[in-house]
Amino acid sequence: MVDIATRVWNHKWKIDPIVRSLIDTDFYKLLMCQSIFRNKPDTTVTFSLINRTKSVRLADLVDEGELREQLDHVRSLSLSRGESTWLRGNTFYGKRQMFRSDFMEWFETMSLPDYHLEKRDGQYELTFEGRWHEVMLWEIPALAILMELRGRAVLRDMGRFELQVLYARAMTRVWEKVEALRDLPDLRLADFGTRRRHSFLWQDWCVQALHEGLEDSFTGTSNCLIAKNRDLEAIGTNAHELPMVYSALARDDAELARAPYDVLADWHEEHEGNLRIILPDTYGTDQFLANAPDWLAGWTGIRIDSGDPVQGAETAIRWWQDRGEDPTEKLVIFSDGLDVDKIRELSETFRGRVRVSFGWGTMLTNDFRGLVPGDALAPFSLVCKAVAANGHPTVKLSDNPRKAMGPAEEIERYKRVFGVGRQEELEVVV
Amino acid sequence: MVDIATRVWNHKWKIDPIVRSLIDTDFYKLLMCQSIFRNKPDTTVTFSLINRTKSVRLADLVDEGELREQLDHVRSLSLSRGESTWLRGNTFYGKRQMFRSDFMEWFETMSLPDYHLEKRDGQYELTFEGRWHEVMLWEIPALAILMELRGRAVLRDMGRFELQVLYARAMTRVWEKVEALRDLPDLRLADFGTRRRHSFLWQDWCVQALHEGLEDSFTGTSNCLIAKNRDLEAIGTNAHELPMVYSALARDDAELARAPYDVLADWHEEHEGNLRIILPDTYGTDQFLANAPDWLAGWTGIRIDSGDPVQGAETAIRWWQDRGEDPTEKLVIFSDGLDVDKIRELSETFRGRVRVSFGWGTMLTNDFRGLVPGDALAPFSLVCKAVAANGHPTVKLSDNPRKAMGPAEEIERYKRVFGVGRQEELEVVV
Repeated sequence: MVDIATRVWNHKWKIDPIVRSLIDTDFYKLLMCQSIFRNKPDTTVTFSLINRTKSVRLADLVDEGELREQLDHVRSLSLSRGESTWLRGNTFYGKRQMFRSDFMEWFETMSLPDYHLEKRDGQYELTFEGRWHEVMLWEIPALAILMELRGRAVLRDMGRFELQVLYARAMTRVWEKVEALRDLPDLRLADFGTRRRHSFLWQDWCVQALHEGLEDSFTGTSNCLIAKNRDLEAIGTNAHELPMVYSALARDDAELARAPYDVLADWHEEHEGNLRIILPDTYGTDQFLANAPDWLAGWTGIRIDSGDPVQGAETAIRWWQDRGEDPTEKLVIFSDGLDVDKIRELSETFRGRVRVSFGWGTMLTNDFRGLVPGDALAPFSLVCKAVAANGHPTVKLSDNPRKAMGPAEEIERYKRVFGVGRQEELEVVV
Repeated sequence: MVDIATRVWNHKWKIDPIVRSLIDTDFYKLLMCQSIFRNKPDTTVTFSLINRTKSVRLADLVDEGELREQLDHVRSLSLSRGESTWLRGNTFYGKRQMFRSDFMEWFETMSLPDYHLEKRDGQYELTFEGRWHEVMLWEIPALAILMELRGRAVLRDMGRFELQVLYARAMTRVWEKVEALRDLPDLRLADFGTRRRHSFLWQDWCVQALHEGLEDSFTGTSNCLIAKNRDLEAIGTNAHELPMVYSALARDDAELARAPYDVLADWHEEHEGNLRIILPDTYGTDQFLANAPDWLAGWTGIRIDSGDPVQGAETAIRWWQDRGEDPTEKLVIFSDGLDVDKIRELSETFRGRVRVSFGWGTMLTNDFRGLVPGDALAPFSLVCKAVAANGHPTVKLSDNPRKAMGPAEEIERYKRVFGVGRQEELEVVV
């Protein structure tokens, strides 16, 4: 029996909203938002959408009107009472009241600022300019909306059973990954796949499948809404935008050289335990660690997000040893380009030498490769990054020059200041 | 939003019934039932469940109490007004009022007779004794119930997502079959999978998937309830029970030799066009055709249900040619042990030589091979057959001696009367 009121209510939606909640975002965005809200409340930042996969012509695939409707819908959202209660009352990484009252009061009444959208060369130029702690909240919904609208465009003409079998195939693939991982001893793995997910419902399914299939080896999800709805841990620490903006604000080379450590000093003051995770690759891991102050070696672990992951983890282990730390008590979080084979390989390579954890993203929540003609649902490399702060361009070097961004002359300056030499180029799939 | 009344109503079911309608059965059972109701209303017949796959110990797998509940539920069913309207008002094979008023009046008020159930050597002995046109209606529900209870037993301890992935894999397999068949020119294929289906909902899904995927090449389903609900053609003609019971009733060898033709004479009188399909293999195809009266060669086609199908169809083509008929205007229906490869092979072998149609059964509605540990969901060979009529045992020789049944001395007598020599043994999977 169909509930008639539900059916009538569903007919009243003008659109099928992709993002329906301000906490349908990565946990670390909220952590960083709070930190920025306290430490850099007056900084003006520009975030910009960047499609690294030029062959996917988003503006040809996705209708501009639909995109605007989805973005406008996100602007109409505000934090619900239940969401606020969850953020205020929950335990994150063993700590209660992770979110301070002044931050929550602001968050409860904010809505996302305006966006600027135009088409150019088959791509969308989508930018957000305003106070850092406001525009930074656009990153995840903007990416999730574009990923899902692209999927909807591809699926538009498929039949009902054809669609069901498409999802059956994708489910089977996720489950085969579960089966390939469930026997790995000491596996600790979380979902980091919000930004490039196929869709919200699909991410929700993947998270639940991993929870059932991997049991305690599945440690949680970066998505706050799914963590709340499914009674899971919300997972995450910090991202490149912090050192990138801090660095862009530096007034000279000396301040620039200090900026990546200043930002972690602010973080150190606010967070403890598992939230003290170093993300070292923004301006090259080797130099970052070599020049790091000793208190940073006391942090819980490190996140390897670019470059060759084995090399990155070996560098971290040597660094801890040099600083008199015991690597077996340290945590290495791998979060770049993961899939089953790499997870197994990394897990086996570092077992017993360091604690290992995985933040599994795109190949968990968007592996539809080969499932439709022309591979039109294959994941692609879409990012949304801080490109300027108070009028100065940001720069990222990364451990993989293909992930570098910023004006050429600024990249050269950063390389000089941070002492970065030759880097190995690695293919960027997602 | 959940409809509260629905939720409360669902809690009131004492069991989850497997067969919920008297027309959740094969169309040809109703056709034969009407014919028997007219021609042999006083014959007493015993139907008996026979599990040819002894390794599947049904009585160990399936709880006797649950089995009795399901069988008792079927006994509580009577024809609904809508079902009666559909049988009375529908067009079957282009003919209105296929079911006569006297038959419909009886069918509207009947319920299934009692059953006899006991356990022996890990198997269920399940028999139905009574008037032929009543007990014969037990065949399909009894098989469907045992198949589905066995499936439920195997699935009992699986997790929610594990189950979803199991069905995802099975759906993918069915769809791969659709994809392998959809380019076959002139394909005509119907679902004959009711009796050995994995479950009702699964058969319903398979039928709809074939309808979407094969479009006009999918000609309908033998299941009346699904045909009614999904607005499809109900498909079917006649089965071995007719010649088997007519033969068991023969008082001497001369009557026995005539019996398989007598039954078709009765059928000839009642049916025309596509319902005039010969099922020649009950006592050996070669001799049956050689001794057949000329009017039988005028029938529309032949159904090949045992033995080597290519050989069977070649025999039929030669027979039509010998009797001055044009084989290209005749129909051959293949219905034994079909799967994609065999359908493709038979389709290609006989294209242009004879009209070909497929009645696809177990490997359509119950192909869960290899999907659970120990292959515990693999289909197996369960049948429910007329074993006696008015106290005389029935006999089937078939074109495959492994499908033969009856007391040894009676088999010898039938072989002599029908002139059946050496036969080739073929494996019986389902």
